[in-house]
Amino acid sequence: MVEPLVTSTANRRVREIRALRQRKHREHAGLCYVEGIRAVGEALGSGASIETLVVSPELLTSDFARGLVRRARAQRVSILEVSPAVFASLSERDGPQGLAAAVRQRWERLDAIAVAPGETWVAVDGIADPGNLGTILRTCDASGAAGAVVLGDATDPYDPAAVRASMGAVFTRRLSRASFRELVDWVRATGARLVGSAEGGGHDYRDADYGEATVLLLGSEREGLSAAQREACDELVRIPMLGTASSLNVAVAAGVLLYEVLRRRERRADA
Amino acid sequence: MVEPLVTSTANRRVREIRALRQRKHREHAGLCYVEGIRAVGEALGSGASIETLVVSPELLTSDFARGLVRRARAQRVSILEVSPAVFASLSERDGPQGLAAAVRQRWERLDAIAVAPGETWVAVDGIADPGNLGTILRTCDASGAAGAVVLGDATDPYDPAAVRASMGAVFTRRLSRASFRELVDWVRATGARLVGSAEGGGHDYRDADYGEATVLLLGSEREGLSAAQREACDELVRIPMLGTASSLNVAVAAGVLLYEVLRRRERRADA
Repeated sequence: MVEPLVTSTANRRVREIRALRQRKHREHAGLCYVEGIRAVGEALGSGASIETLVVSPELLTSDFARGLVRRARAQRVSILEVSPAVFASLSERDGPQGLAAAVRQRWERLDAIAVAPGETWVAVDGIADPGNLGTILRTCDASGAAGAVVLGDATDPYDPAAVRASMGAVFTRRLSRASFRELVDWVRATGARLVGSAEGGGHDYRDADYGEATVLLLGSEREGLSAAQREACDELVRIPMLGTASSLNVAVAAGVLLYEVLRRRERRADA
Repeated sequence: MVEPLVTSTANRRVREIRALRQRKHREHAGLCYVEGIRAVGEALGSGASIETLVVSPELLTSDFARGLVRRARAQRVSILEVSPAVFASLSERDGPQGLAAAVRQRWERLDAIAVAPGETWVAVDGIADPGNLGTILRTCDASGAAGAVVLGDATDPYDPAAVRASMGAVFTRRLSRASFRELVDWVRATGARLVGSAEGGGHDYRDADYGEATVLLLGSEREGLSAAQREACDELVRIPMLGTASSLNVAVAAGVLLYEVLRRRERRADA
Protein backbone atom coordinates (compact mmCIF):
# COMPACT_ATOMS: atom_id res chain seq x y z
CA MET A 1 0.00 0.00 0.00
CA VAL A 2 1.33 3.43 -0.91
CA GLU A 3 0.69 6.22 1.59
CA PRO A 4 -0.55 9.51 0.17
CA LEU A 5 2.06 12.13 -0.77
CA VAL A 6 3.02 14.20 2.27
CA THR A 7 2.63 17.90 1.57
CA SER A 8 2.94 19.30 5.11
CA THR A 9 6.32 20.07 6.66
CA ALA A 10 4.61 19.56 10.02
CA ASN A 11 3.85 15.89 9.29
CA ARG A 12 5.02 13.74 12.23
CA ARG A 13 7.35 11.49 10.22
CA VAL A 14 8.83 14.50 8.42
CA ARG A 15 9.51 16.19 11.74
CA GLU A 16 11.12 13.04 13.12
CA ILE A 17 13.47 12.85 10.14
CA ARG A 18 14.26 16.56 10.31
CA ALA A 19 15.17 16.11 13.98
CA LEU A 20 18.00 13.74 12.92
CA ARG A 21 20.10 16.84 12.29
CA GLN A 22 20.62 16.96 16.05
CA ARG A 23 22.83 14.42 17.72
CA LYS A 24 20.55 13.88 20.70
CA HIS A 25 17.64 13.00 18.40
CA ARG A 26 19.87 10.74 16.30
CA GLU A 27 20.97 8.88 19.41
CA HIS A 28 17.46 8.66 20.82
CA ALA A 29 16.09 7.28 17.54
CA GLY A 30 19.20 5.22 16.74
CA LEU A 31 19.04 6.59 13.20
CA CYS A 32 20.98 8.90 10.90
CA TYR A 33 20.02 11.02 7.91
CA VAL A 34 21.50 10.23 4.50
CA GLU A 35 20.84 12.42 1.49
CA GLY A 36 21.47 12.20 -2.22
CA ILE A 37 21.35 9.48 -4.85
CA ARG A 38 24.95 8.33 -4.45
CA ALA A 39 24.83 8.25 -0.66
CA VAL A 40 21.48 6.45 -0.47
CA GLY A 41 22.75 4.00 -3.08
CA GLU A 42 25.84 3.30 -0.96
CA ALA A 43 23.69 2.73 2.12
CA LEU A 44 21.42 0.32 0.21
CA GLY A 45 24.41 -1.41 -1.38
CA SER A 46 26.22 -1.92 1.91
CA GLY A 47 23.31 -3.73 3.51
CA ALA A 48 22.60 -0.92 5.98
CA SER A 49 19.16 -1.08 7.50
CA ILE A 50 17.01 1.63 5.93
CA GLU A 51 14.28 2.71 8.32
CA THR A 52 12.54 5.08 5.89
CA LEU A 53 13.30 6.04 2.32
CA VAL A 54 12.22 9.62 1.62
CA VAL A 55 11.29 10.18 -2.02
CA SER A 56 10.08 13.28 -3.76
CA PRO A 57 8.86 11.86 -7.07
CA GLU A 58 8.79 15.25 -8.79
CA LEU A 59 12.47 15.86 -8.00
CA LEU A 60 13.59 12.34 -8.83
CA THR A 61 14.64 12.51 -12.44
CA SER A 62 17.41 9.95 -12.83
CA ASP A 63 16.72 6.36 -13.89
CA PHE A 64 19.40 5.16 -11.50
CA ALA A 65 17.58 6.82 -8.60
CA ARG A 66 14.23 5.36 -9.67
CA GLY A 67 15.93 1.96 -9.77
CA LEU A 68 17.09 2.43 -6.19
CA VAL A 69 13.53 3.21 -5.11
CA ARG A 70 12.24 0.08 -6.86
CA ARG A 71 14.93 -1.99 -5.20
CA ALA A 72 14.09 -0.56 -1.77
CA ARG A 73 10.41 -1.22 -2.39
CA ALA A 74 11.19 -4.83 -3.28
CA GLN A 75 13.09 -5.09 0.01
CA ARG A 76 9.94 -3.83 1.77
CA VAL A 77 11.62 -0.65 2.95
CA SER A 78 9.11 1.88 4.25
CA ILE A 79 8.79 4.69 1.71
CA LEU A 80 7.70 8.22 2.52
CA GLU A 81 6.66 10.18 -0.56
CA VAL A 82 6.84 13.94 -0.07
CA SER A 83 6.30 17.11 -2.08
CA PRO A 84 9.34 19.08 -3.28
CA ALA A 85 8.64 21.70 -0.60
CA VAL A 86 8.65 19.09 2.14
CA PHE A 87 11.82 17.54 0.73
CA ALA A 88 13.47 20.97 0.71
CA SER A 89 12.54 21.37 4.37
CA LEU A 90 14.57 18.22 5.15
CA SER A 91 17.40 18.86 2.72
CA GLU A 92 20.83 20.15 3.68
CA ARG A 93 21.80 20.72 0.07
CA ASP A 94 21.40 23.16 -2.72
CA GLY A 95 19.69 21.38 -5.60
CA PRO A 96 18.13 18.51 -3.67
CA GLN A 97 17.92 15.28 -5.69
CA GLY A 98 14.66 14.03 -4.19
CA LEU A 99 16.13 10.99 -2.43
CA ALA A 100 17.09 10.64 1.23
CA ALA A 101 16.89 8.02 3.93
CA ALA A 102 16.73 7.49 7.65
CA VAL A 103 19.24 4.70 8.24
CA ARG A 104 19.73 2.66 11.39
CA GLN A 105 22.93 3.32 13.33
CA ARG A 106 25.00 0.21 13.98
CA TRP A 107 27.21 0.18 17.07
CA GLU A 108 29.02 -2.86 18.39
CA ARG A 109 29.94 -3.42 22.03
CA LEU A 110 33.67 -2.95 22.28
CA ASP A 111 34.19 -5.88 24.65
CA ALA A 112 32.53 -8.18 22.12
CA ILE A 113 34.98 -7.27 19.33
CA ALA A 114 37.91 -9.62 18.73
CA VAL A 115 40.89 -8.29 16.81
CA ALA A 116 42.51 -10.74 14.40
CA PRO A 117 46.24 -10.61 13.57
CA GLY A 118 46.76 -8.28 10.63
CA GLU A 119 43.74 -6.20 11.56
CA THR A 120 43.86 -2.42 11.96
CA TRP A 121 41.47 -0.22 13.92
CA VAL A 122 41.38 3.51 14.45
CA ALA A 123 40.42 5.11 17.76
CA VAL A 124 39.55 8.79 17.71
CA ASP A 125 39.27 11.15 20.64
CA GLY A 126 38.26 14.79 20.61
CA ILE A 127 37.94 15.11 16.84
CA ALA A 128 35.56 18.03 16.46
CA ASP A 129 34.95 18.25 12.72
CA PRO A 130 32.54 15.63 11.37
CA GLY A 131 34.05 16.03 7.89
CA ASN A 132 37.42 14.94 9.29
CA LEU A 133 35.88 11.92 11.02
CA GLY A 134 33.99 10.90 7.88
CA THR A 135 37.17 11.27 5.80
CA ILE A 136 39.05 9.04 8.28
CA LEU A 137 36.35 6.36 7.91
CA ARG A 138 36.66 6.64 4.11
CA THR A 139 40.41 6.08 4.41
CA CYS A 140 39.83 3.13 6.78
CA ASP A 141 37.71 1.53 4.08
CA ALA A 142 40.26 2.24 1.33
CA SER A 143 43.25 1.02 3.34
CA GLY A 144 41.50 -2.06 4.68
CA ALA A 145 41.18 -0.97 8.32
CA ALA A 146 38.35 -2.79 10.08
CA GLY A 147 36.66 0.06 11.86
CA ALA A 148 36.75 2.86 14.37
CA VAL A 149 36.27 3.29 18.09
CA VAL A 150 34.83 6.70 18.93
CA LEU A 151 35.99 7.90 22.32
CA GLY A 152 34.67 10.41 24.84
CA ASP A 153 34.04 13.74 23.25
CA ALA A 154 34.70 12.98 19.59
CA THR A 155 32.10 14.15 17.09
CA ASP A 156 29.38 11.79 15.87
CA PRO A 157 30.23 9.55 12.88
CA TYR A 158 26.52 9.65 12.08
CA ASP A 159 26.49 13.46 11.78
CA PRO A 160 25.22 14.21 8.25
CA ALA A 161 28.55 15.87 7.35
CA ALA A 162 30.48 12.80 8.56
CA VAL A 163 28.17 10.47 6.65
CA ARG A 164 28.71 12.55 3.51
CA ALA A 165 32.49 12.70 3.84
CA SER A 166 32.70 8.97 4.54
CA MET A 167 31.37 8.21 1.04
CA GLY A 168 29.48 5.22 2.40
CA ALA A 169 32.29 3.97 4.66
CA VAL A 170 30.22 4.75 7.77
CA PHE A 171 28.07 1.80 6.65
CA THR A 172 30.91 -0.57 5.68
CA ARG A 173 33.26 -0.06 8.64
CA ARG A 174 32.60 -1.47 12.11
CA LEU A 175 31.90 1.14 14.79
CA SER A 176 32.10 1.12 18.54
CA ARG A 177 32.24 3.74 21.27
CA ALA A 178 33.91 3.67 24.62
CA SER A 179 35.78 5.61 27.25
CA PHE A 180 39.55 5.80 26.94
CA ARG A 181 39.86 3.42 29.91
CA GLU A 182 37.65 0.86 28.15
CA LEU A 183 39.71 1.26 24.98
CA VAL A 184 42.94 0.53 26.81
CA ASP A 185 41.44 -2.54 28.52
CA TRP A 186 40.17 -3.77 25.18
CA VAL A 187 43.51 -3.25 23.42
CA ARG A 188 45.32 -5.13 26.20
CA ALA A 189 42.80 -7.98 26.04
CA THR A 190 43.02 -8.31 22.27
CA GLY A 191 46.82 -8.23 22.15
CA ALA A 192 46.84 -5.42 19.59
CA ARG A 193 49.45 -2.64 19.73
CA LEU A 194 48.19 0.81 20.67
CA VAL A 195 50.01 3.28 18.43
CA GLY A 196 49.44 6.97 19.08
CA SER A 197 49.94 9.72 16.54
CA ALA A 198 51.92 12.34 18.47
CA GLU A 199 53.43 15.38 16.87
CA GLY A 200 57.01 15.82 17.88
CA GLY A 201 57.28 12.65 19.94
CA GLY A 202 58.14 8.98 19.65
CA HIS A 203 59.48 7.25 16.56
CA ASP A 204 59.48 8.40 12.98
CA TYR A 205 56.38 6.63 11.61
CA ARG A 206 58.54 4.83 9.06
CA ASP A 207 60.64 3.19 11.77
CA ALA A 208 57.89 2.36 14.25
CA ASP A 209 56.61 -1.04 15.34
CA TYR A 210 52.92 -1.43 14.52
CA GLY A 211 52.65 -5.00 15.84
CA GLU A 212 50.62 -7.86 14.41
CA ALA A 213 47.39 -5.96 14.96
CA THR A 214 47.20 -2.21 15.38
CA VAL A 215 44.89 0.27 17.06
CA LEU A 216 45.88 3.70 15.79
CA LEU A 217 44.96 6.41 18.30
CA LEU A 218 44.28 9.92 16.97
CA GLY A 219 43.66 12.99 19.10
CA SER A 220 41.81 16.21 18.47
CA GLU A 221 42.57 18.71 15.71
CA ARG A 222 43.73 21.29 18.24
CA GLU A 223 45.27 19.40 21.10
CA GLY A 224 46.36 16.03 19.76
CA LEU A 225 46.72 13.36 22.46
CA SER A 226 46.72 14.14 26.17
CA ALA A 227 49.71 13.23 28.34
CA ALA A 228 47.75 10.33 29.85
CA GLN A 229 46.87 9.02 26.39
CA ARG A 230 50.48 9.19 25.22
CA GLU A 231 51.51 7.37 28.38
CA ALA A 232 49.06 4.53 27.69
CA CYS A 233 50.34 3.95 24.15
CA ASP A 234 52.68 1.06 23.31
CA GLU A 235 54.25 3.22 20.64
CA LEU A 236 54.14 6.89 19.67
CA VAL A 237 54.74 7.84 16.07
CA ARG A 238 55.45 11.17 14.46
CA ILE A 239 55.27 12.23 10.86
CA PRO A 240 58.22 14.46 9.90
CA MET A 241 57.31 18.14 9.61
CA LEU A 242 59.72 20.01 7.36
CA GLY A 243 57.94 23.35 7.02
CA THR A 244 56.72 26.11 9.24
CA ALA A 245 53.43 24.34 10.02
CA SER A 246 53.65 22.19 13.11
CA SER A 247 51.04 19.63 12.19
CA LEU A 248 49.01 18.00 9.46
CA ASN A 249 45.25 17.94 9.15
CA VAL A 250 44.17 14.99 11.31
CA ALA A 251 42.54 13.14 8.38
CA VAL A 252 45.71 13.55 6.30
CA ALA A 253 47.84 12.28 9.20
CA ALA A 254 45.49 9.30 9.55
CA GLY A 255 45.88 8.61 5.82
CA VAL A 256 49.68 8.68 5.91
CA LEU A 257 49.71 6.36 8.95
CA LEU A 258 47.04 3.93 7.74
CA TYR A 259 48.90 3.46 4.45
CA GLU A 260 52.14 2.92 6.38
CA VAL A 261 50.43 0.18 8.39
CA LEU A 262 49.15 -1.37 5.16
CA ARG A 263 52.68 -1.31 3.75
CA ARG A 264 53.94 -3.21 6.81
CA ARG A 265 51.15 -5.77 6.56
CA GLU A 266 51.98 -6.45 2.95
CA ARG A 267 55.71 -6.65 3.70
CA ARG A 268 54.96 -9.13 6.47
CA ALA A 269 52.74 -11.17 4.15
CA ASP A 270 55.57 -11.29 1.58
CA ALA A 271 58.18 -12.39 4.13
CA MET B 1 48.17 58.93 13.12
CA VAL B 2 45.26 56.78 14.24
CA GLU B 3 42.07 57.05 12.22
CA PRO B 4 38.83 57.28 14.20
CA LEU B 5 37.00 54.05 15.05
CA VAL B 6 34.76 52.98 12.16
CA THR B 7 31.20 52.38 13.33
CA SER B 8 29.41 52.15 9.97
CA THR B 9 29.19 48.88 8.05
CA ALA B 10 28.81 51.06 4.92
CA ASN B 11 32.30 52.56 5.32
CA ARG B 12 34.20 52.31 2.02
CA ARG B 13 37.17 50.36 3.37
CA VAL B 14 34.87 48.01 5.28
CA ARG B 15 32.90 47.37 2.10
CA GLU B 16 36.10 46.68 0.16
CA ILE B 17 37.24 44.14 2.72
CA ARG B 18 33.82 42.51 2.87
CA ALA B 19 33.92 42.17 -0.92
CA LEU B 20 36.98 39.89 -0.58
CA ARG B 21 34.55 37.04 0.09
CA GLN B 22 34.01 36.95 -3.66
CA ARG B 23 36.70 35.62 -5.94
CA LYS B 24 36.31 38.31 -8.57
CA HIS B 25 36.82 41.05 -6.01
CA ARG B 26 39.80 39.21 -4.53
CA GLU B 27 41.38 38.95 -7.97
CA HIS B 28 40.61 42.55 -8.84
CA ALA B 29 42.12 43.83 -5.61
CA GLY B 30 44.91 41.24 -5.50
CA LEU B 31 44.07 40.63 -1.83
CA CYS B 32 42.62 37.96 0.40
CA TYR B 33 40.80 38.02 3.73
CA VAL B 34 42.37 36.38 6.76
CA GLU B 35 40.57 36.15 10.08
CA GLY B 36 41.48 35.18 13.60
CA ILE B 37 44.43 35.62 15.88
CA ARG B 38 46.29 32.49 14.82
CA ALA B 39 45.79 33.07 11.11
CA VAL B 40 46.76 36.75 11.21
CA GLY B 41 49.78 35.80 13.31
CA GLU B 42 50.83 33.26 10.68
CA ALA B 43 50.48 35.82 7.92
CA LEU B 44 52.56 38.36 9.85
CA GLY B 45 55.12 35.73 10.77
CA SER B 46 55.54 34.49 7.20
CA GLY B 47 56.39 37.91 5.86
CA ALA B 48 53.17 38.20 3.86
CA SER B 49 52.32 41.73 2.86
CA ILE B 50 49.46 42.97 5.04
CA GLU B 51 47.45 45.62 3.23
CA THR B 52 45.15 46.43 6.14
CA LEU B 53 44.91 45.05 9.64
CA VAL B 54 41.32 45.13 10.91
CA VAL B 55 41.12 45.47 14.68
CA SER B 56 38.11 45.68 16.92
CA PRO B 57 39.70 46.82 20.20
CA GLU B 58 36.68 45.88 22.29
CA LEU B 59 36.79 42.28 21.04
CA LEU B 60 40.54 41.94 21.28
CA THR B 61 41.13 40.47 24.69
CA SER B 62 44.28 38.36 24.38
CA ASP B 63 47.73 39.78 25.10
CA PHE B 64 49.13 37.77 22.22
CA ALA B 65 46.71 39.47 19.82
CA ARG B 66 47.53 42.92 21.20
CA GLY B 67 51.19 42.10 20.67
CA LEU B 68 50.46 41.27 17.03
CA VAL B 69 48.78 44.64 16.58
CA ARG B 70 51.76 46.43 18.13
CA ARG B 71 54.10 44.52 15.87
CA ALA B 72 52.06 45.40 12.79
CA ARG B 73 51.95 49.04 13.87
CA ALA B 74 55.74 49.05 14.21
CA GLN B 75 55.93 47.67 10.65
CA ARG B 76 53.75 50.60 9.53
CA VAL B 77 50.88 48.33 8.49
CA SER B 78 47.68 50.30 7.88
CA ILE B 79 45.29 49.62 10.76
CA LEU B 80 41.52 49.92 10.54
CA GLU B 81 39.87 50.09 13.93
CA VAL B 82 36.20 49.07 13.86
CA SER B 83 33.35 48.60 16.28
CA PRO B 84 32.29 45.06 17.24
CA ALA B 85 29.20 45.41 15.01
CA VAL B 86 31.33 46.36 12.01
CA PHE B 87 33.73 43.51 12.75
CA ALA B 88 30.80 41.09 12.93
CA SER B 89 29.66 42.32 9.51
CA LEU B 90 33.04 41.19 8.09
CA SER B 91 33.43 38.04 10.12
CA GLU B 92 32.81 34.54 8.82
CA ARG B 93 32.98 33.05 12.28
CA ASP B 94 30.96 32.52 15.37
CA GLY B 95 32.71 34.25 18.23
CA PRO B 96 34.86 36.69 16.24
CA GLN B 97 38.20 37.43 17.90
CA GLY B 98 38.47 41.04 16.75
CA LEU B 99 41.46 40.58 14.45
CA ALA B 100 41.47 40.16 10.68
CA ALA B 101 43.56 41.31 7.74
CA ALA B 102 43.48 42.02 4.05
CA VAL B 103 46.66 40.34 2.78
CA ARG B 104 48.28 40.74 -0.60
CA GLN B 105 48.09 37.72 -2.94
CA ARG B 106 51.44 36.55 -4.22
CA TRP B 107 51.52 34.79 -7.60
CA GLU B 108 54.68 33.93 -9.50
CA ARG B 109 54.88 33.60 -13.26
CA LEU B 110 55.22 29.91 -14.00
CA ASP B 111 57.83 30.40 -16.74
CA ALA B 112 60.04 32.26 -14.27
CA ILE B 113 60.11 29.36 -11.80
CA ALA B 114 63.11 27.03 -11.91
CA VAL B 115 62.80 23.61 -10.30
CA ALA B 116 65.87 22.37 -8.46
CA PRO B 117 66.69 18.66 -8.15
CA GLY B 118 65.01 17.26 -5.07
CA GLU B 119 62.18 19.78 -5.31
CA THR B 120 58.52 18.79 -5.30
CA TRP B 121 55.57 20.79 -6.61
CA VAL B 122 51.88 20.05 -6.70
CA ALA B 123 49.63 20.95 -9.64
CA VAL B 124 45.89 20.89 -9.03
CA ASP B 125 43.13 20.92 -11.59
CA GLY B 126 39.40 21.02 -11.01
CA ILE B 127 39.57 20.80 -7.22
CA ALA B 128 36.28 22.35 -6.16
CA ASP B 129 36.48 22.45 -2.39
CA PRO B 130 38.66 25.25 -0.99
CA GLY B 131 39.11 23.30 2.26
CA ASN B 132 40.72 20.49 0.27
CA LEU B 133 43.04 22.89 -1.56
CA GLY B 134 44.06 24.60 1.68
CA THR B 135 44.70 21.22 3.30
CA ILE B 136 46.91 20.23 0.35
CA LEU B 137 48.95 23.44 0.80
CA ARG B 138 49.29 22.65 4.50
CA THR B 139 50.64 19.20 3.60
CA CYS B 140 53.00 20.74 1.02
CA ASP B 141 54.46 22.86 3.79
CA ALA B 142 54.76 19.91 6.21
CA SER B 143 56.32 17.55 3.66
CA GLY B 144 58.68 20.16 2.25
CA ALA B 145 57.04 20.61 -1.16
CA ALA B 146 57.90 23.98 -2.69
CA GLY B 147 54.51 25.14 -3.87
CA ALA B 148 51.46 24.65 -6.01
CA VAL B 149 50.41 25.42 -9.55
CA VAL B 150 46.69 26.09 -9.77
CA LEU B 151 45.28 25.06 -13.15
CA GLY B 152 42.20 26.03 -15.11
CA ASP B 153 39.07 25.64 -13.09
CA ALA B 154 40.49 24.77 -9.69
CA THR B 155 39.15 26.69 -6.72
CA ASP B 156 40.99 29.73 -5.39
CA PRO B 157 43.79 29.12 -2.83
CA TYR B 158 42.96 32.59 -1.49
CA ASP B 159 39.34 31.66 -0.76
CA PRO B 160 38.84 32.30 2.97
CA ALA B 161 38.11 28.60 3.57
CA ALA B 162 41.33 27.60 1.75
CA VAL B 163 43.34 30.18 3.69
CA ARG B 164 41.90 28.79 6.95
CA ALA B 165 42.56 25.15 6.07
CA SER B 166 46.12 25.93 4.94
CA MET B 167 47.06 27.00 8.49
CA GLY B 168 49.31 29.69 7.07
CA ALA B 169 50.82 27.57 4.30
CA VAL B 170 49.14 29.72 1.63
CA PHE B 171 51.68 32.36 2.71
CA THR B 172 54.72 30.09 2.99
CA ARG B 173 54.34 28.05 -0.22
CA ARG B 174 55.04 29.43 -3.68
CA LEU B 175 51.97 29.78 -5.90
CA SER B 176 51.51 30.02 -9.64
CA ARG B 177 48.61 29.58 -12.03
CA ALA B 178 48.56 28.36 -15.58
CA SER B 179 46.73 26.38 -18.22
CA PHE B 180 47.43 22.68 -18.44
CA ARG B 181 49.37 23.28 -21.68
CA GLU B 182 51.59 25.82 -19.92
CA LEU B 183 52.12 23.41 -17.06
CA VAL B 184 53.29 20.66 -19.41
CA ASP B 185 55.68 23.04 -21.23
CA TRP B 186 57.07 24.18 -17.90
CA VAL B 187 57.56 20.64 -16.59
CA ARG B 188 59.38 19.67 -19.81
CA ALA B 189 61.58 22.76 -19.62
CA THR B 190 62.48 22.20 -15.97
CA GLY B 191 63.28 18.52 -16.41
CA ALA B 192 60.94 17.52 -13.57
CA ARG B 193 58.86 14.37 -13.77
CA LEU B 194 55.09 14.84 -14.12
CA VAL B 195 53.46 12.23 -11.89
CA GLY B 196 49.68 11.96 -12.04
CA SER B 197 47.51 10.53 -9.30
CA ALA B 198 45.14 8.21 -11.18
CA GLU B 199 42.78 5.82 -9.47
CA GLY B 200 43.02 2.37 -10.92
CA GLY B 201 45.84 3.13 -13.36
CA GLY B 202 49.60 3.16 -13.60
CA HIS B 203 52.02 1.92 -10.97
CA ASP B 204 51.44 1.25 -7.33
CA TYR B 205 52.64 4.50 -5.74
CA ARG B 206 55.23 2.57 -3.73
CA ASP B 207 56.89 1.24 -6.90
CA ALA B 208 56.71 4.38 -9.03
CA ASP B 209 59.54 6.56 -10.32
CA TYR B 210 59.21 10.11 -9.02
CA GLY B 211 62.38 11.38 -10.68
CA GLU B 212 64.90 13.86 -9.31
CA ALA B 213 62.29 16.58 -9.16
CA THR B 214 58.56 15.90 -9.12
CA VAL B 215 55.41 17.73 -10.16
CA LEU B 216 52.51 15.81 -8.65
CA LEU B 217 49.32 16.31 -10.67
CA LEU B 218 45.98 15.98 -8.86
CA GLY B 219 42.56 16.06 -10.53
CA SER B 220 39.15 17.00 -9.25
CA GLU B 221 37.31 15.35 -6.37
CA ARG B 222 34.72 13.89 -8.71
CA GLU B 223 36.46 13.17 -11.97
CA GLY B 224 40.15 12.83 -11.20
CA LEU B 225 42.40 13.43 -14.21
CA SER B 226 41.12 13.66 -17.77
CA ALA B 227 42.35 11.25 -20.45
CA ALA B 228 44.50 14.02 -21.97
CA GLN B 229 46.05 14.79 -18.60
CA ARG B 230 46.85 11.14 -17.95
CA GLU B 231 48.39 10.94 -21.40
CA ALA B 232 50.69 13.90 -20.71
CA CYS B 233 52.05 12.41 -17.47
CA ASP B 234 55.47 10.75 -17.33
CA GLU B 235 54.13 8.41 -14.70
CA LEU B 236 50.72 7.53 -13.30
CA VAL B 237 50.48 6.30 -9.75
CA ARG B 238 47.66 4.63 -7.89
CA ILE B 239 47.11 4.13 -4.20
CA PRO B 240 45.77 0.64 -3.43
CA MET B 241 42.06 0.59 -2.58
CA LEU B 242 41.12 -2.44 -0.52
CA GLY B 243 37.57 -1.58 0.46
CA THR B 244 34.29 -0.80 -1.23
CA ALA B 245 35.15 2.88 -1.71
CA SER B 246 36.81 3.55 -5.04
CA SER B 247 38.84 6.58 -4.04
CA LEU B 248 40.34 8.62 -1.25
CA ASN B 249 39.61 12.20 -0.40
CA VAL B 250 41.90 14.21 -2.69
CA ALA B 251 43.73 15.88 0.20
CA VAL B 252 44.35 12.51 1.83
CA ALA B 253 45.63 11.08 -1.47
CA ALA B 254 47.93 14.11 -1.82
CA GLY B 255 49.23 13.49 1.70
CA VAL B 256 50.00 9.81 1.07
CA LEU B 257 51.80 10.68 -2.18
CA LEU B 258 53.72 13.72 -0.87
CA TYR B 259 55.07 11.67 2.03
CA GLU B 260 56.02 8.89 -0.39
CA VAL B 261 57.99 11.42 -2.45
CA LEU B 262 59.67 12.66 0.74
CA ARG B 263 60.62 9.07 1.63
CA ARG B 264 62.28 8.69 -1.78
CA ARG B 265 64.16 11.97 -1.42
CA GLU B 266 65.51 10.92 1.94
CA ARG B 267 66.44 7.46 0.65
CA ARG B 268 68.27 9.10 -2.25
CA ALA B 269 70.06 11.47 0.12
CA ASP B 270 71.17 8.50 2.26
CA ALA B 271 72.47 6.52 -0.72
